[in-house]
Amino acid sequence: MQRTLVKNSIDLVNQTIKLQGWVDSIRDHGQVIFFELRDRTGKVQVVGDKSLKSISTEDVVEIIGKVAKRPENMINAELATGEIEIQLESFTILNKCGEMPFQINTDGKDINEEIRLKYRYLDLRRARMQQILRLRSQFIEACRQYLFNNDFVEVETPMLTKSTKEGARDFVVPSRFQPGKFYALPQSPQQYKQLLMTAGIENYFQIARCIRDEDLRADRGFEFTQLDLEMSFVKREEVMQMIEAMVKKAVKEVGGKLKDENFPVISYREAMEKYGADRFDLRSEEEKKEGKLAFAWVVDFPFFKQVNKEDAAEVRDSKSGWTFTHNPFSQPKDEFLQDHLQGKNIEKILTTQYDLVCNGYEVGGGSIRAHNSEVLAQTFKIMGYNEQQIKDSVGHMMEAFKLGTPPHGGIALGLDRLIMLLSQENSLKETIAFPMTSSGRTAVMDAPSTLSEEQFKELGLQLRGFGSLNTASILEKIKTFLTQEKIEFHSFTHEPVFTCEQAAKVCNEPLASGAKSLVLKADGKAIMVVVSAADKLDLKTFKKLYNYKDVSMADKQMLKDVTGLESGAVPPFGSLFNIPTYVEENLLKQPEINFNAGTHTDTISIKPSDFAKIEKAEVGNFAK
Amino acid sequence: MQRTLVKNSIDLVNQTIKLQGWVDSIRDHGQVIFFELRDRTGKVQVVGDKSLKSISTEDVVEIIGKVAKRPENMINAELATGEIEIQLESFTILNKCGEMPFQINTDGKDINEEIRLKYRYLDLRRARMQQILRLRSQFIEACRQYLFNNDFVEVETPMLTKSTKEGARDFVVPSRFQPGKFYALPQSPQQYKQLLMTAGIENYFQIARCIRDEDLRADRGFEFTQLDLEMSFVKREEVMQMIEAMVKKAVKEVGGKLKDENFPVISYREAMEKYGADRFDLRSEEEKKEGKLAFAWVVDFPFFKQVNKEDAAEVRDSKSGWTFTHNPFSQPKDEFLQDHLQGKNIEKILTTQYDLVCNGYEVGGGSIRAHNSEVLAQTFKIMGYNEQQIKDSVGHMMEAFKLGTPPHGGIALGLDRLIMLLSQENSLKETIAFPMTSSGRTAVMDAPSTLSEEQFKELGLQLRGFGSLNTASILEKIKTFLTQEKIEFHSFTHEPVFTCEQAAKVCNEPLASGAKSLVLKADGKAIMVVVSAADKLDLKTFKKLYNYKDVSMADKQMLKDVTGLESGAVPPFGSLFNIPTYVEENLLKQPEINFNAGTHTDTISIKPSDFAKIEKAEVGNFAK
Repeated sequence: MQRTLVKNSIDLVNQTIKLQGWVDSIRDHGQVIFFELRDRTGKVQVVGDKSLKSISTEDVVEIIGKVAKRPENMINAELATGEIEIQLESFTILNKCGEMPFQINTDGKDINEEIRLKYRYLDLRRARMQQILRLRSQFIEACRQYLFNNDFVEVETPMLTKSTKEGARDFVVPSRFQPGKFYALPQSPQQYKQLLMTAGIENYFQIARCIRDEDLRADRGFEFTQLDLEMSFVKREEVMQMIEAMVKKAVKEVGGKLKDENFPVISYREAMEKYGADRFDLRSEEEKKEGKLAFAWVVDFPFFKQVNKEDAAEVRDSKSGWTFTHNPFSQPKDEFLQDHLQGKNIEKILTTQYDLVCNGYEVGGGSIRAHNSEVLAQTFKIMGYNEQQIKDSVGHMMEAFKLGTPPHGGIALGLDRLIMLLSQENSLKETIAFPMTSSGRTAVMDAPSTLSEEQFKELGLQLRGFGSLNTASILEKIKTFLTQEKIEFHSFTHEPVFTCEQAAKVCNEPLASGAKSLVLKADGKAIMVVVSAADKLDLKTFKKLYNYKDVSMADKQMLKDVTGLESGAVPPFGSLFNIPTYVEENLLKQPEINFNAGTHTDTISIKPSDFAKIEKAEVGNFAK
Repeated sequence: MQRTLVKNSIDLVNQTIKLQGWVDSIRDHGQVIFFELRDRTGKVQVVGDKSLKSISTEDVVEIIGKVAKRPENMINAELATGEIEIQLESFTILNKCGEMPFQINTDGKDINEEIRLKYRYLDLRRARMQQILRLRSQFIEACRQYLFNNDFVEVETPMLTKSTKEGARDFVVPSRFQPGKFYALPQSPQQYKQLLMTAGIENYFQIARCIRDEDLRADRGFEFTQLDLEMSFVKREEVMQMIEAMVKKAVKEVGGKLKDENFPVISYREAMEKYGADRFDLRSEEEKKEGKLAFAWVVDFPFFKQVNKEDAAEVRDSKSGWTFTHNPFSQPKDEFLQDHLQGKNIEKILTTQYDLVCNGYEVGGGSIRAHNSEVLAQTFKIMGYNEQQIKDSVGHMMEAFKLGTPPHGGIALGLDRLIMLLSQENSLKETIAFPMTSSGRTAVMDAPSTLSEEQFKELGLQLRGFGSLNTASILEKIKTFLTQEKIEFHSFTHEPVFTCEQAAKVCNEPLASGAKSLVLKADGKAIMVVVSAADKLDLKTFKKLYNYKDVSMADKQMLKDVTGLESGAVPPFGSLFNIPTYVEENLLKQPEINFNAGTHTDTISIKPSDFAKIEKAEVGNFAK
């Protein structure tokens, strides 16, 4: 017998049908047992006898039964199939369900994220998550349909590629064929899509997977998907019109509600004056309640800005103190082209950039691109690049621009964010089937994880620093590491010593040059504090200095757990044990530092400057 | 004035239009100059006066002109617009084209691959490549349309994920948040798509980007794209029927020709008997000429096979000598389920696998999956995994199977290969916009490339072995490396020596224990040959043994270029200089090996077994 889908059962009254799906909820009335059977199309009530006692919720079942109209007073108006029920004739449990780690008949938002994502395959069974996944699929296809109808070609660009200037960190991929060298994962297909314009594709798009090594936030991971698009022979307004028409059509097709049929176009300056930001929310309270989407365009952004010294990428990418606000591949607006080419009035140059905003979020951004190598080179010149640096950064693009590249422009829309707004969610993670946890672990599967020694060898890589030496004894680790870092050291083997005083005596060194390594428990966590053997730790000052509430000496067990060593044998490197190190300044003023190296019989001596070089410690005054 | 597309110009006789595109070919008749203007829709002839002298082929131009009917005898039947020409009124060069590295009016197959891919953006302008890119876009969309019409949901699965058992090497991605740990790039979405069945999606598909670190071949790179699909509550024949219908429809939509309206279904045994292979070409010579596609299904494969000891992945994945033929997640055929569960008659167990073949290629493969944790565990048990190993490998899948996973099955179609066959090409690279070169370099851009020291630090990584010590002297490098690898060595500093005889004397060691390091030029490339100082290299034997045509001593300059050292100071490690090492067996029979370590005054002594451990050399008999 063919399977019937739940949604079709209502049209088959008095017929015997086969249904397959999950047991959604059970009501046990003794002799009569009801349950709702759920498949991808909905739920329907099944009525059976006590043979149904063996089923549990979320079991996967196949049932055969007769479709019967319910009496008037039993109709369930909340269910699409509420006018019928299935009178069970036989059933098979296709797969039993064990104990569920959480319920799936809620919205799931109160469940710990790690647990939700570990069991994401259950979490996705929620009606809310099912709706989002289907909405996502439908919305993207609606956009695609619009683009195909407008003569676009979908082209895939490489996943293993070269680092490009996109203003964030690349994820890199070691090459086995060229050990020690790395590919980069794409932050966006920016350069490839421009090269497709050089190739004469004219109308390109891609649902592009992009990956950036950005600092994680609760609501996003490393991966995102953008609708990436580029067109040849277009002006700014043509791209904006095309995108606006596509977005409106796709939003409506999936049942979204627009505030404005025509998206307002607002200049950056006006936006900053009116809303204090270039992403703003145009909805009234009423419109927010109605779930409306308020799109708007922002245009006429400054091309350049002064580098934010706290942004590592900006500092790295700029050599003059100027950096781009949005995209170094953009074309300045016509009226600023001369200033751009002459490097004049840099702060006043406006770019052809256009951002699409919605409900307070930026959901897309694009521009008309420089298609002339001189204009592109000048952008980097303003950022302080010399000719060689320009060639190294964008030489291949400049070469392409000299071989018949048409004027072109495009945009990238953040699909995750659009889906988030369409489904009225607050987190990008809700729009992704298997997002990462906020700590960067993959959903369900346990990654990242370690590599085998064989893999490290094939890739020509090894772990760095102490971590690279994880089979050696502490003494060996320290010696090998010091050798490797080319740090001069002396090591003494001597009779067993258990105090700094004994050590100083046996090594014939002044007490003050001895490093006393203390493992402390600070607000519940282990830390390493290193003071000169001639000093005492001033606990009160230390606590105040580093803002700890509760600090005490680690007990024997904790010391053992953290370092594997006994008191009196601990070297002054917290990094060896993955705990932070604090060092008292007096110690660093000694001509040399002597320390225990994992045993009671070995002392190593190095220069304070070398200590500072290899151990990234907090230095402070906390001796008494 | 709005742009007119070339293909529409034919309908606008006597009107003045604006065209934008590339100058395709020029005929200069002195006072009258003709050129063909090309855009994405075709070519049209433009007629102008000598003002056109400034244009060159592949310039990007905008022209305004009047559409005129050509006289009867001037009609070009080979051109879609051959009945008209454009009488030029004005033109603008939007971007000049410099000298092209190659012509684009050929099929391009005779051009060196590195050059073709360096300028891929020009290579793609060829009519052939344009057709392939458009065919690819259309074919994929036709498949998608079919699936949407059959109630499928498109879901994206993660790019940063965990290593899975797919029978090839993973590319890995170092984590900055957890230095020393790695994500894997997906070889396929196999596990995630099965988990989507657990999630109740029922009908999933994805145009999935897959990445495998396989040995490169001339016709393929590391990346491929598959149409990945999974369905719940299905039998083998239902998946096959669905896919067959989709492929037929999509092939026809893009103008492909099928040999058979119904794909033959052939058992693995029959295929091997009849064709000697499980991928075979059913076309006649006639059908090959007509460009027909001969699809067929192959079914009833053995589930397991004996490990091929030369396949590293098979050796790694199996612990019993048995490994899977296609997919460890498959369900055995019903009639073999008992044998499977009992681990009996392993060689006779048939799997539910189905392969789709076409014109001698495998273009897809799938199966009904195990959805019961016991069946999956048993597959790994047959491969010799113990309980802990099974848990580590597929524990998360077994857990999901116990929480209401429905019966399911699916398939993955190789889209690159399908497009290759549809476009009658021989290489997968012809179907990909920006493929890698055969040496694993990215098209256009220069990757893989080195990382900055800052990036290495952030990722907790460093280069391995000698490469990790690139600032030290050769002597320091060797000493540090030996220390790091915990290899016992003795080093002597002595008066300068320039021959092995002198060195043996000054170190008071037997001559035979001295390693004579020779840098040779073998078929134009530098190699390192190491023989005992008591032996002489037998060049004739060496050449024959390693199949070299021309081998001679490197001259002084080559020695300097390769090693930076003088003759008599070269240590026996080719790897220090990135050249291969060949070592004569007699040397390894000595109780120890003494060698120069980059100077004339230092000799280092190590055990032959340690030498073999750190230098991966070819060992042979080539002394005289």
